[in-house]
Amino acid sequence: MSSASPSSPVTAAMLAIGDELLSGRTKDKNIGHLADVLTMSGIDLKEVRIVADDEPAIVEALNALRARYDYVFTSGGIGPTHDDITADAVSVAFDLPCEHDADALRILADMYRAREMEFTEARKRMARMPRGAQHIANPVSVAPGFIVENVYVMAGVPQVFQAMLDNVVPTLKTGAKMMSQSVTSQFGEGDIGTPLSEIQKAHPETSIGSYPKYDGQRFSTEIVVRARDAHLLEAAARDVAAMIENIAKAKASSTFA
Amino acid sequence: MSSASPSSPVTAAMLAIGDELLSGRTKDKNIGHLADVLTMSGIDLKEVRIVADDEPAIVEALNALRARYDYVFTSGGIGPTHDDITADAVSVAFDLPCEHDADALRILADMYRAREMEFTEARKRMARMPRGAQHIANPVSVAPGFIVENVYVMAGVPQVFQAMLDNVVPTLKTGAKMMSQSVTSQFGEGDIGTPLSEIQKAHPETSIGSYPKYDGQRFSTEIVVRARDAHLLEAAARDVAAMIENIAKAKASSTFA
Repeated sequence: MSSASPSSPVTAAMLAIGDELLSGRTKDKNIGHLADVLTMSGIDLKEVRIVADDEPAIVEALNALRARYDYVFTSGGIGPTHDDITADAVSVAFDLPCEHDADALRILADMYRAREMEFTEARKRMARMPRGAQHIANPVSVAPGFIVENVYVMAGVPQVFQAMLDNVVPTLKTGAKMMSQSVTSQFGEGDIGTPLSEIQKAHPETSIGSYPKYDGQRFSTEIVVRARDAHLLEAAARDVAAMIENIAKAKASSTFA
Repeated sequence: MSSASPSSPVTAAMLAIGDELLSGRTKDKNIGHLADVLTMSGIDLKEVRIVADDEPAIVEALNALRARYDYVFTSGGIGPTHDDITADAVSVAFDLPCEHDADALRILADMYRAREMEFTEARKRMARMPRGAQHIANPVSVAPGFIVENVYVMAGVPQVFQAMLDNVVPTLKTGAKMMSQSVTSQFGEGDIGTPLSEIQKAHPETSIGSYPKYDGQRFSTEIVVRARDAHLLEAAARDVAAMIENIAKAKASSTFA
């Protein structure tokens, strides 16, 4: 990975494609995985969209996202059936012909020959991509994903998506890694909201998030401080911890007063 | 629920709001739940976006979605802390003042009084909403969601999101319910892709989806036929089942030939 200057974060978006995600039939697992991997790599995932297997919807979303972010990662719609239209849609978005890629045909033909399976017309669909696209190797089921400019087109099946992503990540430029420190508060957001807001103001270079949890009885809060600088991170997290201690003391003294 | 004419499907989008969803810290559970509930209700979820706790990003996405779909459901960002900015962003999107709602203040004050808890400034933030918004009752933690025109603003904590959604669904107009029938294929998409595409062409009123599964060794396929008419659904599903039987027979005869 090449590292960009810390002052210019590297940004990314995800476009998850598939009717099954919108009907509830399939619960997406790729968004959370991509979010984890990008965060660990110092790339900021800024936006996610989920659209149906619908060419105009895919084209519009892709064009909006690829213009705005350094990278766009897509999942889904690159299999062999009629509802797999991602290669066509990406081709339309880039105004490129969508055609059978010679290398992809060759590696698929080799694989099916080795498995003594017929290389059907449907299977040949998996070799279609925008002209000139680069492959993303698929160690799970061979049929490659592909890259056009800043768009990375990957499979929807989580095992395949993850394997493709593993191949892609080392080639991406990355920013200064976002570090985070988590502080657990036994108090709900209502108790900590005002002082936490003051701490955020006092530490403008950090981003302080507050995540309520509900156990069926009461709320507690996970406070996550994020920064690209270890010292700034440490200072803000220390203030958060002190704030929680102060609230605990104040509550204890009011209880026993 | 009032039922719209079957020829005019009712459409919806979701806007999930929160840095934590994009950093991977929190794995979203609301999108899949909303998808399930809407599908059961005969409402088509057409698009989902996830954006950060960033006012311009929320405003832009919300304005795009609310102009395009019958309903927009949002999750997240309505708690008491500084990073809860959804009420402000929705107000900006609708060009309405964001202010403490008198009814919301009252029910929150009552609740905190009953619990002998202080009604802090932070907690009062949860009563803020665009002027004139309708409440969405929150049976879990009292602080209400709200409705402005076709936008339903709900909490991010899944238990609260689900409870709010339960209150909202009976008030929505719904379309003819999409029915589905699922046929399991022991064959991968490469075997069924071409004949399945023919079946889709022969049944244009249905939507046939093909969902590959991978068990670590081999691919199988779940074929889902969807239609708003039971007879059309049945006819297409029958053709899919016959197609799979034919492939099985062809494979058996070629093996034993």
